[in-house]
Amino acid sequence: YRFGLAEEHDHVGVTTGLAWTEVGGELLTIEAITLEGKGKVTITGKLGDVMQESAQAALTYARSRAREWGISADFFQENDIHIHVPEGATPKDGPSAGIAMCTTLCSALTGIPVRKDVAMTGEITLRGRALIIGGLKEKLLAAHRGGIKHVLIPEENVKDLKEVAQSVLKDLEIHPVSHMDQVLELALTQSPSRPLADGDEETTAAPPTPAEKKLGDESPTLPH
Amino acid sequence: YRFGLAEEHDHVGVTTGLAWTEVGGELLTIEAITLEGKGKVTITGKLGDVMQESAQAALTYARSRAREWGISADFFQENDIHIHVPEGATPKDGPSAGIAMCTTLCSALTGIPVRKDVAMTGEITLRGRALIIGGLKEKLLAAHRGGIKHVLIPEENVKDLKEVAQSVLKDLEIHPVSHMDQVLELALTQSPSRPLADGDEETTAAPPTPAEKKLGDESPTLPH
Amino acid sequence: YRFGLAEEHDHVGVTTGLAWTEVGGELLTIEAITLEGKGKVTITGKLGDVMQESAQAALTYARSRAREWGISADFFQENDIHIHVPEGATPKDGPSAGIAMCTTLCSALTGIPVRKDVAMTGEITLRGRALIIGGLKEKLLAAHRGGIKHVLIPEENVKDLKEVAQSVLKDLEIHPVSHMDQVLELALTQSPSRPLADGDEETTAAPPTPAEKKLGDESPTLPH
Amino acid sequence: YRFGLAEEHDHVGVTTGLAWTEVGGELLTIEAITLEGKGKVTITGKLGDVMQESAQAALTYARSRAREWGISADFFQENDIHIHVPEGATPKDGPSAGIAMCTTLCSALTGIPVRKDVAMTGEITLRGRALIIGGLKEKLLAAHRGGIKHVLIPEENVKDLKEVAQSVLKDLEIHPVSHMDQVLELALTQSPSRPLADGDEETTAAPPTPAEKKLGDESPTLPH
Amino acid sequence: YRFGLAEEHDHVGVTTGLAWTEVGGELLTIEAITLEGKGKVTITGKLGDVMQESAQAALTYARSRAREWGISADFFQENDIHIHVPEGATPKDGPSAGIAMCTTLCSALTGIPVRKDVAMTGEITLRGRALIIGGLKEKLLAAHRGGIKHVLIPEENVKDLKEVAQSVLKDLEIHPVSHMDQVLELALTQSPSRPLADGDEETTAAPPTPAEKKLGDESPTLPH
Amino acid sequence: YRFGLAEEHDHVGVTTGLAWTEVGGELLTIEAITLEGKGKVTITGKLGDVMQESAQAALTYARSRAREWGISADFFQENDIHIHVPEGATPKDGPSAGIAMCTTLCSALTGIPVRKDVAMTGEITLRGRALIIGGLKEKLLAAHRGGIKHVLIPEENVKDLKEVAQSVLKDLEIHPVSHMDQVLELALTQSPSRPLADGDEETTAAPPTPAEKKLGDESPTLPH
Ligand SMILES: [Ca+2]
Ligand SMILES: [Ca+2]
Ligand SMILES: [Ca+2]
Ligand SMILES: [Ca+2]
Ligand SMILES: [Ca+2]
Ligand SMILES: [Ca+2]
Ligand SMILES: [Ca+2]
Ligand SMILES: [Ca+2]
Ligand SMILES: [Ca+2]
Ligand SMILES: [Ca+2]
Ligand SMILES: [Ca+2]
Ligand SMILES: [Ca+2]
Repeated sequence: YRFGLAEEHDHVGVTTGLAWTEVGGELLTIEAITLEGKGKVTITGKLGDVMQESAQAALTYARSRAREWGISADFFQENDIHIHVPEGATPKDGPSAGIAMCTTLCSALTGIPVRKDVAMTGEITLRGRALIIGGLKEKLLAAHRGGIKHVLIPEENVKDLKEVAQSVLKDLEIHPVSHMDQVLELALTQSPSRPLADGDEETTAAPPTPAEKKLGDESPTLPH
Repeated sequence: YRFGLAEEHDHVGVTTGLAWTEVGGELLTIEAITLEGKGKVTITGKLGDVMQESAQAALTYARSRAREWGISADFFQENDIHIHVPEGATPKDGPSAGIAMCTTLCSALTGIPVRKDVAMTGEITLRGRALIIGGLKEKLLAAHRGGIKHVLIPEENVKDLKEVAQSVLKDLEIHPVSHMDQVLELALTQSPSRPLADGDEETTAAPPTPAEKKLGDESPTLPH
Repeated sequence: YRFGLAEEHDHVGVTTGLAWTEVGGELLTIEAITLEGKGKVTITGKLGDVMQESAQAALTYARSRAREWGISADFFQENDIHIHVPEGATPKDGPSAGIAMCTTLCSALTGIPVRKDVAMTGEITLRGRALIIGGLKEKLLAAHRGGIKHVLIPEENVKDLKEVAQSVLKDLEIHPVSHMDQVLELALTQSPSRPLADGDEETTAAPPTPAEKKLGDESPTLPH
Repeated sequence: YRFGLAEEHDHVGVTTGLAWTEVGGELLTIEAITLEGKGKVTITGKLGDVMQESAQAALTYARSRAREWGISADFFQENDIHIHVPEGATPKDGPSAGIAMCTTLCSALTGIPVRKDVAMTGEITLRGRALIIGGLKEKLLAAHRGGIKHVLIPEENVKDLKEVAQSVLKDLEIHPVSHMDQVLELALTQSPSRPLADGDEETTAAPPTPAEKKLGDESPTLPH
Repeated sequence: YRFGLAEEHDHVGVTTGLAWTEVGGELLTIEAITLEGKGKVTITGKLGDVMQESAQAALTYARSRAREWGISADFFQENDIHIHVPEGATPKDGPSAGIAMCTTLCSALTGIPVRKDVAMTGEITLRGRALIIGGLKEKLLAAHRGGIKHVLIPEENVKDLKEVAQSVLKDLEIHPVSHMDQVLELALTQSPSRPLADGDEETTAAPPTPAEKKLGDESPTLPH
Repeated sequence: YRFGLAEEHDHVGVTTGLAWTEVGGELLTIEAITLEGKGKVTITGKLGDVMQESAQAALTYARSRAREWGISADFFQENDIHIHVPEGATPKDGPSAGIAMCTTLCSALTGIPVRKDVAMTGEITLRGRALIIGGLKEKLLAAHRGGIKHVLIPEENVKDLKEVAQSVLKDLEIHPVSHMDQVLELALTQSPSRPLADGDEETTAAPPTPAEKKLGDESPTLPH
């Protein structure tokens, strides 16, 4: 296990984001976990104000979709959520980890693993839009260096691909996205959609129904 | 979908504001969402103190009108509200997004979409007055550049229109307003007014009655 | 409607204060509103620490008088209060808006309008004393420029009137006051006094009894 | 009524303190009020950290004595307390208003007025000790200038009296004190002691029993 | 009563600490008091961050021992605790008042007085260890100057005694300690140990049993 | 007992961490204690932001494992936790005490002592990974100087061992770890695993079953 490299296994509550830190483009591991508690949200990892606000926006979007994922609204009052971004000593900032944070939260809430060979970058809005980010070139270099196969980027950033070296692009499959719906479909090993029946108030996320899976099972090939 | 451009569809909980940022006049997307919760208010988007206070004033005005819109007072104790202004990395400040924030909140609370071809600027007061703002010329340039049709400006700013180029004004329909009542009538696809009957304590906003609509249905023509 | 000018109508929860800002003497509109809630107090308008403390003192005095005004003590636990001073981008500070803030709160709590042709300046104490303020000359100039008829000033400031130009004084009626009792008698369109009967716990302010009115009905003539 | 001068009447919840401000020795009016509420404590008046901590110590001492004064412990959970020191624009700091703050609180809690012709200075401890303060000479000058008759000073400061001009001392009666018990006996118009009977849980302070009065009724002569 | 001198009587909730302030070694009086309340902890006296954290560690250790002292765990939810260090205007910092703060808390919780002729210095840990401190020489000078008889110092500091003048040491009895158990045995007039019987939930500390006293009654001779 | 030296006994709630402070590599004692309370977490010891976030991550991981350790989720709502790092006057920062903090918490929660001859360094993640840290060479020097036998280091740091002097390495047994599971197995005197039966809601940690012990009883030989 090495930082700056792709994960070796699909994990629940862990997503590889692409961000800028003081030392350039970098793979960031975004962790999230839920704990029986009182609704407290903790965000750690030496994150700047913008990245913390980004985590809040990611959480709000996740909460707004929770019912469709089989999570009742009460879950958020009866559980604590911790979002953490190791390596804790490296200052991190900016909004570009937004969709990765949201993917991590969705995975932690539903129990569906995130595909280990996927990295992503993009600002998130309250409505789940994936917005343009800066530094695409450096971020794709970091993804390439780290052995990532699939990279999700905002559709608005497609225009920046022409600045990226062909040697980098030939090893990566780039997936332009404009909304979290697409992100989750590509990044999770299963679809999270499992509407909570009306009056159904269970707070523990049940395992998703395999039949709903939309992607090949841990297959390295993504549509592109 | 591109920032700095008009929205492609009418949306609930999204309004296009005109504000000043570090780079001049700019279209700002103002988002708001309500979530079943405990009455917490979150305001994000790298907003300065004045813009955050502006959001608080917009929310107070919206709460003071909520009963008329069919929302009980308890709604605000039993739901969280998140106001967010992408792009999260751009510092934003000033009071001129006040009426846009209030429009977004009204839309999010009532479920009535905001017209996609409308942008607006104006400080808001607790009584719903639309107060004079600065930088009208630059803001109208940004609206023009972004493909906006209708712009709502404070009546006190009409005197500043003479400084705006005719090439800009001929493509825009300018609507002077002095109160949120006028703003909502022009910006929402329907009137929000649906008084809550006394003793009527439902907390979920029901769909507004179509018969009350005051504007053409998503029609691009506004009175002027 | 223009800032820096007297209001056109008597309003509930709005008072014209005279204060110093970065640009000299200025008319400040002081707004207050109560909302069904949980006892939260919000103070906005880019106010410095002293002006925020002044608002707290004004609120404490108002709460200490509330029972006499027909408001039960529980009202303050079951309602939120928002005090706002547009124009939100202008820094404001100092204690001289104290009695204006208290008048606004009394109006918002009782539903009695504030006379539109009255402006006032004076620090407030917890016991309702009106204390001496600075910059009387500049404040009276601003009142004159704004078309104000009646100005309430602290009795301790009468000695400063000799520095004010006759051209200003001849258009203004100056009312020296030393206590909030006098301020409310002069500034509200009716007396707020309507003692809450013992055991009477109603939280909604009923309309004041017209018979208690002490001033001519919206008449421009005040005793002096 | 003029600041810097002795009060004209005995008042409840008002004490004249002697403190240092930016302009030297000064009479400070210390106000306190209790309001039916939820146990919130508010301290205002542009006070520095030390003076705010001094107010907290004064309050703790008062709470520790409350039962003897006929106030139940629940009173402090069911009421808010506001301590304010006009003039709100003058920065104030230091611990020397401690015993004056405690006297004000005792007066506000018991309803017993503070003698109008008494001023005092001294740090307070949690056990009610009156500790030595600085600037006695300047403070006595301010008391003299303000028409004060009786001044309470810490016993430890008696040694500093030799630096004070005879012209000042001949008009003042100096009362050295080492504990709040002495302060209250000298400063209040009646003794606050009225032990709460065990199991007696009334939260409203009843009027003190006149028979317990230890000082002449508003008489200007104090023991010395 | 003079600061910088030993107390004249044994007191409950008062301990003499030895600390460094801006002016060198100094006797500090550490006060603590408990009040019926809601579990709030207040720490005052112009204490720096380290000294405030020291007070928190002292309180945690005291709470961890409370049951043995006859105090139920609920006591800390139903009472407020105030720790104060006069003289409020003198900045104080560092961890060396830790064992003195813990002694004060134990005294305040159990009602057992602290011996008036004892001073002490030592950092405290959560497990009640007394850790090495700096400035022993200056602190012993202050103790000597203040008329203290017995000084408790951390065992790790014994090595520093050789730097202290014989003229100072011949008047002081130095008691090396490594744990709060030793500190309390030496500093309190009685042993605090009075185990709370299981299921025994009384919240008011009963007077300690005299038979458990381990030291001579207020005798100036301590074992050494 | 001396700081900078190994503990003399196995203790509950105490772990020896290796960290960097202002003066280089250093042994840090990490203490933790739980107290019947209301779920409050206190972190003290002059810790920088990164080290405080590290403590939060350690606590979250411990909470996520608590059920397996026989601790119900309610325990964390009904108890307070205090994490403290003496020496309180030394500034400490960085994430490298993460696994030591987590070990201390596990020990405090389960009542299982930590082996006195073990020190450790490593960042912790929410999933319990032990991440690479800096300054390994200096930290091992400090461990050697302090008489430590066994040192747990992150597997990613094995590459740095070649920079460490043989004279240091020959006295230390280095145990590379990549996950808290390994850390706890090596550092605690017993295995903490004692799954809480479903519906089993006891909040007091029972003594672990001796049969589950995986290491020799306080034996100095660890597997390597
Ligand atoms: Ca890295
Ligand atoms: Ca619910
Ligand atoms: Ca833009
Ligand atoms: Ca209600
Ligand atoms: Ca103006
Ligand atoms: Ca009540
Ligand atoms: Ca003055
Ligand atoms: Ca009680
Ligand atoms: Ca001293
Ligand atoms: Ca209990
Ligand atoms: Ca050390
Ligand atoms: Ca539970």
